[in-house]
Amino acid sequence: MKIDLNSDMGEGFGQWRVADDDSLMDIVSSANIACGFHAGDYAIMDHTVRLAKEKGIGIGAHPGLPDLIGFGRRAMPVSDSDMEAMLACQIGALQGVAARHGHRVTHVSYHAAFGTMANADEARALRLVRVIAALDKELTVFAMTGQPTERAAEKVGLRVHTLFLADRAYTVSGALVPRGQPGAVIHDLDAVRARVRQFLENGSVTTIDGVRFPVKAKSILVHSDTPGSLDIAKAIRAEIDATGAVLTPAHLLAD
Amino acid sequence: MKIDLNSDMGEGFGQWRVADDDSLMDIVSSANIACGFHAGDYAIMDHTVRLAKEKGIGIGAHPGLPDLIGFGRRAMPVSDSDMEAMLACQIGALQGVAARHGHRVTHVSYHAAFGTMANADEARALRLVRVIAALDKELTVFAMTGQPTERAAEKVGLRVHTLFLADRAYTVSGALVPRGQPGAVIHDLDAVRARVRQFLENGSVTTIDGVRFPVKAKSILVHSDTPGSLDIAKAIRAEIDATGAVLTPAHLLAD
Amino acid sequence: MKIDLNSDMGEGFGQWRVADDDSLMDIVSSANIACGFHAGDYAIMDHTVRLAKEKGIGIGAHPGLPDLIGFGRRAMPVSDSDMEAMLACQIGALQGVAARHGHRVTHVSYHAAFGTMANADEARALRLVRVIAALDKELTVFAMTGQPTERAAEKVGLRVHTLFLADRAYTVSGALVPRGQPGAVIHDLDAVRARVRQFLENGSVTTIDGVRFPVKAKSILVHSDTPGSLDIAKAIRAEIDATGAVLTPAHLLAD
Amino acid sequence: MKIDLNSDMGEGFGQWRVADDDSLMDIVSSANIACGFHAGDYAIMDHTVRLAKEKGIGIGAHPGLPDLIGFGRRAMPVSDSDMEAMLACQIGALQGVAARHGHRVTHVSYHAAFGTMANADEARALRLVRVIAALDKELTVFAMTGQPTERAAEKVGLRVHTLFLADRAYTVSGALVPRGQPGAVIHDLDAVRARVRQFLENGSVTTIDGVRFPVKAKSILVHSDTPGSLDIAKAIRAEIDATGAVLTPAHLLAD
Repeated sequence: MKIDLNSDMGEGFGQWRVADDDSLMDIVSSANIACGFHAGDYAIMDHTVRLAKEKGIGIGAHPGLPDLIGFGRRAMPVSDSDMEAMLACQIGALQGVAARHGHRVTHVSYHAAFGTMANADEARALRLVRVIAALDKELTVFAMTGQPTERAAEKVGLRVHTLFLADRAYTVSGALVPRGQPGAVIHDLDAVRARVRQFLENGSVTTIDGVRFPVKAKSILVHSDTPGSLDIAKAIRAEIDATGAVLTPAHLLAD
Repeated sequence: MKIDLNSDMGEGFGQWRVADDDSLMDIVSSANIACGFHAGDYAIMDHTVRLAKEKGIGIGAHPGLPDLIGFGRRAMPVSDSDMEAMLACQIGALQGVAARHGHRVTHVSYHAAFGTMANADEARALRLVRVIAALDKELTVFAMTGQPTERAAEKVGLRVHTLFLADRAYTVSGALVPRGQPGAVIHDLDAVRARVRQFLENGSVTTIDGVRFPVKAKSILVHSDTPGSLDIAKAIRAEIDATGAVLTPAHLLAD
Repeated sequence: MKIDLNSDMGEGFGQWRVADDDSLMDIVSSANIACGFHAGDYAIMDHTVRLAKEKGIGIGAHPGLPDLIGFGRRAMPVSDSDMEAMLACQIGALQGVAARHGHRVTHVSYHAAFGTMANADEARALRLVRVIAALDKELTVFAMTGQPTERAAEKVGLRVHTLFLADRAYTVSGALVPRGQPGAVIHDLDAVRARVRQFLENGSVTTIDGVRFPVKAKSILVHSDTPGSLDIAKAIRAEIDATGAVLTPAHLLAD
Repeated sequence: MKIDLNSDMGEGFGQWRVADDDSLMDIVSSANIACGFHAGDYAIMDHTVRLAKEKGIGIGAHPGLPDLIGFGRRAMPVSDSDMEAMLACQIGALQGVAARHGHRVTHVSYHAAFGTMANADEARALRLVRVIAALDKELTVFAMTGQPTERAAEKVGLRVHTLFLADRAYTVSGALVPRGQPGAVIHDLDAVRARVRQFLENGSVTTIDGVRFPVKAKSILVHSDTPGSLDIAKAIRAEIDATGAVLTPAHLLAD
């Protein structure tokens, strides 16, 4: 079995850093790279892409809202057209950096409020994946199961990968338990490993209500801005290796 | 004879504007579009590219230093690697926006201090044009005659177009008389037209010392942030039409 | 009769400008100066304050949301505490610049979405005027009649001046007809002058429904980012002079 | 004996952080707070000032160049007048925030390249301290011994405190050994403590050449962006307490 392990990267700005990207790169197979709107700048993008190239990591654009102070987590009143332009600028910028390092952007993974707003309705989701397709038809779109973006991407013929979050609790309907609710985040690394094993071996997750829910994800996401993200990533990676699954960058996975 | 008339565009930010780009678009054949570092943002880039596509105008990236307050006119202590990353991000971002509108970035024209710094030495000039070539081998590079960038672009096999500035005085060695010196800027529109005519018919410019100097440029540049730039552009365009030259986007001109 | 004529100023950024502030300064008695959040920067603030000092113009802080691209016109999800901090930073920064030029900030006038959000409820309005009072008890607060800010400022013992907009239509209840509705903006300069005369002589405005509505304002506001703002300001000033009213900076007007 | 221990604080931006300011606040007596130009924003300034007020820590403005990406460490070509305006804006902004929390800005400590540029020549140093004096004559200026700023501050009648850096090597002439040179930074905490003891008991530092050099500083500075800064601060504080010196905010020290 092949599985992708991905994490957000390059989410610093200037001298500031969020996570130990250089170490994370030794653990994951794909990096979702901030493109300068909610985080990241030319130098960080450049460093992150160069490192990913050296280590054979797949790279994706991680577009966000233009809001450094809010880290792209605050909704903004912007038009569909503005969101399309933001998306094109950010993917394009990363493609430019990738080209200079002989690498290639192979997926797109929305960040925070950009993702929420992109999934506000089917029409907007569709407009945005059309932008992605216009930039490169081979791009894989990351989405949460059941989101408008998943359906929209399929509609325009883009490959979609849904994500499994091993350190987050799921509701009985397969959605994430919102942060802030009791039990939403799973801190115990053994519990995280057990969930990875169940996901890899049974294709399921046990919801917060104790029910088995099927999960068809091909990528496991680790949020790098969670405290202890490096340890979480290591635990997940150890379990992937232990089950004999083969770590594979997202774009090299079959549909 | 075919000639390109180009101007910097999209050099506003948010609600602020520098020039009447929409009107300039009816006069020129190529637009050098700011890419968000010294000016421009996602919405302005998007609007400018859309308009250029509608009007059949060729588009180029107009990369600058990351300095909105200084409008990219102030030198900064940055490494070669940083300049390469800045360049890749900016061209890439514009390519992304172009792709979404079914247009294509066909040239690159450095802005202000970025250009000065890019031409600081041959090695740096070479590193930067290699970035351009890595992004798209078909890109035409705009340069002033004799700059390191001209030689570097030729070296890596990129097409280069040198520029003629009809409203600027030239020294006897073919360089521009620096702004601020007496007579550096030619304000009289009839004089500007006469210089365009001489350039088109004789391939020469009369220097500030009264000497005829050969000019091999294929593109005439109008700085859109000069007061009265729209009138200057109109005057130049009128003279181009009067001489029977054919206005042609830069990338469609033969070498 | 004494009357203040004020206008927003210093709303450029870097090289960009919104209005001809230097000319407006010869017409108005008070300037509401952008403080670097929605517009303005250290150099523009400095230039504007210096000019105001030279010309004997009263100065006020014109605080906005931290949103250069949106010019402070877009609402943002921010806490009361964040708004208080934004307000303190902006007034303080202008006070600093004023101190260096031997001038003094004497009023505060909220900009766009900051104003809308400040008036969202009585509690927030009160928290914000308390910040103003903490910085300087002598500051005059500009407000639209009936806004929570008017009541809040009175409550904490700050002087309040309500504003009259001579180029905007009023509803029968004394509110402004929203921009975008027919007749909301009065473009005819003679009509603007007639409204100024009626306001000065009768203390009233004729609403869009043809009813006379009493106006107790002590300051007339000209939005400098309206096209033709300089001509509107001149027309208003001419009418003020014609009626024999005495142009007086806001903070020098009696309560 | 009374001694001040100070550290740079509030040097994050948005969600990014440099140091554990909340913990540092329990160790130092004065905080040099970033003012939004090289680092810091309204929310961070507000939080830092509020905390300092609660813990009885003296606060100072830590003005820098407007360069978030470069963290204010890169020189910029700016005029004296621009530097004066930058300084006034930043001190003023912090004064505004302080006023809202019933605290008071009592010192000024230049950051990185702003400091270097402020000390470029005597005339500029003088212009800048005049700005400080115009904002508040009671402000204490932090300076390195022998800098133009020290002399300029004395000239305009401002109190000056020179700084002792316990974790940095000194040359035989009393200057700091530049970072990057061997032995420039002292990492051993026992060595740092020994230097603090010598400074407190003998008023001297042993230079890198083994010579005793007199040090008249009243404040010890810990750079919070040095790795392990919290441990360094704790070691220095422990030694201060061990020698029986009384930790005292800078502005409460006698001249």
